[in-house]
Amino acid sequence: MTSKLRVGVAGLGTVGGGLLKLFADPNSRVNEKMVLTSVSARNRTRARGIDISAYRWFDDPVEMAEDADIDVLVELIGGSDGPAKRATEAALQRGAHVVSANKALVAIHGRALAELAESTGAKILFEAAVGGGVPMVKALRESLSGCTAHAIAGILNGTCNYILTEMEAGGRSFEDVLSEAQRLGYAEADPTMDVGGFDAAHKLALLSAIAFGARPDFEHVRVEGIEQVTLTDIRMAGKLGYRIKLIAKGESADGGVAMHVAPALLGFDHPLANVSGSLNALVADAEPSGQLTFIGHGAGEGPTASAVAADLIDLADGRAGFAFGRPFKQLAEAQRAAPAERGRYYMRLMAEDRPGVVAAVSDRLAHEDISIESFLQMPVHDGPVVPIVLTTQICSRAALEAAAGAIESAGVVAEPPRLMPIEESGARTRPWSQR
Amino acid sequence: MTSKLRVGVAGLGTVGGGLLKLFADPNSRVNEKMVLTSVSARNRTRARGIDISAYRWFDDPVEMAEDADIDVLVELIGGSDGPAKRATEAALQRGAHVVSANKALVAIHGRALAELAESTGAKILFEAAVGGGVPMVKALRESLSGCTAHAIAGILNGTCNYILTEMEAGGRSFEDVLSEAQRLGYAEADPTMDVGGFDAAHKLALLSAIAFGARPDFEHVRVEGIEQVTLTDIRMAGKLGYRIKLIAKGESADGGVAMHVAPALLGFDHPLANVSGSLNALVADAEPSGQLTFIGHGAGEGPTASAVAADLIDLADGRAGFAFGRPFKQLAEAQRAAPAERGRYYMRLMAEDRPGVVAAVSDRLAHEDISIESFLQMPVHDGPVVPIVLTTQICSRAALEAAAGAIESAGVVAEPPRLMPIEESGARTRPWSQR
Repeated sequence: MTSKLRVGVAGLGTVGGGLLKLFADPNSRVNEKMVLTSVSARNRTRARGIDISAYRWFDDPVEMAEDADIDVLVELIGGSDGPAKRATEAALQRGAHVVSANKALVAIHGRALAELAESTGAKILFEAAVGGGVPMVKALRESLSGCTAHAIAGILNGTCNYILTEMEAGGRSFEDVLSEAQRLGYAEADPTMDVGGFDAAHKLALLSAIAFGARPDFEHVRVEGIEQVTLTDIRMAGKLGYRIKLIAKGESADGGVAMHVAPALLGFDHPLANVSGSLNALVADAEPSGQLTFIGHGAGEGPTASAVAADLIDLADGRAGFAFGRPFKQLAEAQRAAPAERGRYYMRLMAEDRPGVVAAVSDRLAHEDISIESFLQMPVHDGPVVPIVLTTQICSRAALEAAAGAIESAGVVAEPPRLMPIEESGARTRPWSQR
Repeated sequence: MTSKLRVGVAGLGTVGGGLLKLFADPNSRVNEKMVLTSVSARNRTRARGIDISAYRWFDDPVEMAEDADIDVLVELIGGSDGPAKRATEAALQRGAHVVSANKALVAIHGRALAELAESTGAKILFEAAVGGGVPMVKALRESLSGCTAHAIAGILNGTCNYILTEMEAGGRSFEDVLSEAQRLGYAEADPTMDVGGFDAAHKLALLSAIAFGARPDFEHVRVEGIEQVTLTDIRMAGKLGYRIKLIAKGESADGGVAMHVAPALLGFDHPLANVSGSLNALVADAEPSGQLTFIGHGAGEGPTASAVAADLIDLADGRAGFAFGRPFKQLAEAQRAAPAERGRYYMRLMAEDRPGVVAAVSDRLAHEDISIESFLQMPVHDGPVVPIVLTTQICSRAALEAAAGAIESAGVVAEPPRLMPIEESGARTRPWSQR
């Protein structure tokens, strides 16, 4: 027993409960490699459906992290600061490893934590922080280690994907689906982290760091949530052959990395278009591997516990490497590139129902040299405002924003035009064999 | 330089050429970790578009494998016996590692090779042997190491998937698409390994060993190819809501492992249904991770070279473990279970165009207690034989085969009824959070 890795788990919520169930299963491979010795949580006596009396109890996770009797801290507390950060630092400081499901902590403080870990010889692993049970971190860090990644694009927040899927499937409004998700416990009482795109942005910062060999740089993710996506957008995009998803995208561009989270239109043949409900997925576009797609359960007790277990077994087997795939000093200080400016776009206008609107819109677009690819207006039977949507051919976003401003100034729309990018479905890279 | 891993590449065909391009790229991470010192191929002077003069040349790959100046043999020769096997054994024998893209070799001789490697402390890795650039081996071996896999199902042969995709998209016959694929170099002159299902069976044996912790057991894969799939099958299955794919499936059942490769019908919502052209994919159904799907390029120079490179970097970084994920002695001697017998099936009858056929068919099915779920007959305008297809409700395959025999004996069909299983799309396991 003494050669087994000794594990302390801080945080006994959903994921912690799942992990304890794995340790309670005598057939689980986690028990071949390590032993759970200690636990810590806010409330010792809360009913968890699992017996914790065999483990040493700590009221304070930092005290547990400082305890020389554990070799690995599993940090499932959450939050980018406070006890999660202090416990993580305390463990790494004394050379104990950390397995973390805490995307906010690692996205925001990942640089300092990676450096600290390397200075003491500890490892910090975070497969569970991104994509739940989908091994996105390991795939980018190890399976693509011989490749050059050009772009990654993911559906990284199950709550947003669930809401968008339900809006489309049930013809329901954002507010309606969100409040149901809150009732069912799929969304937080304060949903901002999820629907505002911040949770996806945390995860994107981590994946981009690994994919592009750069230091994590959460502050420079451009973030837009799904609060402004309406049922009209979803329906009219659908009629034009697109589905709306919250896409977290990282691109290597001009020697830098551009990261953005935003709702986008995907053609039905895009590898992420059919990822529905609370599933998560990642598409990695690298050379010479070609495009790879990974899909699975991005959250929840079982999937996330399985990712924690995989990290623990990597540690026990001596397979754990650097947090972001290379020594911290080798990671580039990311040159922040602006997200790709040129592309195709969707524009939705809430037009006044009177003659001349279409002419005014197409005039303003033509003035900015923007060609329309498709145009859709549907009859409405309630009120004086008519939704008009159009998609552009490839154009500059700045030009499109100028045209949108001019359309708004022309007084033909009831609210500012709404813009969303269209994600192209083809891989930017193809395997050599298919060139 | 002396601390870098020294690599010898045996076989300079498509994949070997791709690997040499990676080594020729000064920015590639393979050059941080190792150095290519030696190469061997059948023909030294063949034009490869890549300069091999800097590497030590061996006419005989076995001699190269025996050479103490390489630490790793990359075996890209192919074939389950002959020089590929002798070179692999020679390297492992003296404790040198092997990275292999040779599915036939590892599927058929994997037991002996894994034992040999463990006896000398060498590693044998084969990510490139399965799924090309898709990291199926690592995902099963490491990312699901804390999980229990129940079933895996994959599209593991790009040639078959290309043929089936083209038949459906272009309304063309099997023979027509195959001969075009042969002209284009996508299919071998003797296509049996691919279209007969044997290549997929090799890969399935490897993935099943890892997923279920059992010794590889290629001999007990039940193999059926796509040669008998007709355009009529594809069209009529399509009208009933299914697509036909060659599915390689491994299941943990009755304490054993059942493996089979066969064309099967997939509902359009099955995660493998939209994997088109030469793509490969794997769906792993495990607990508590829930269902995971991996999709990408299953063959070709770039994807396969990237998988070789990932294995090499794992070796250089000291991350390489046991060939099948655990010490050979811990792998179960697979109890061979029969593939699941009960399920829903598709049956195609080439019926004589005369009264009473439908009655005769439904009589024979009823006699075996088999309920029909859907039934489709379409008008034909050429000849006296009418295709009739039906899908059953859940029934026993043995009962269905008995009914098929009885239908044939009744003299109402022009050829033996054709049976294919229907793959259910739902995950057999769900993450705990969704129960």
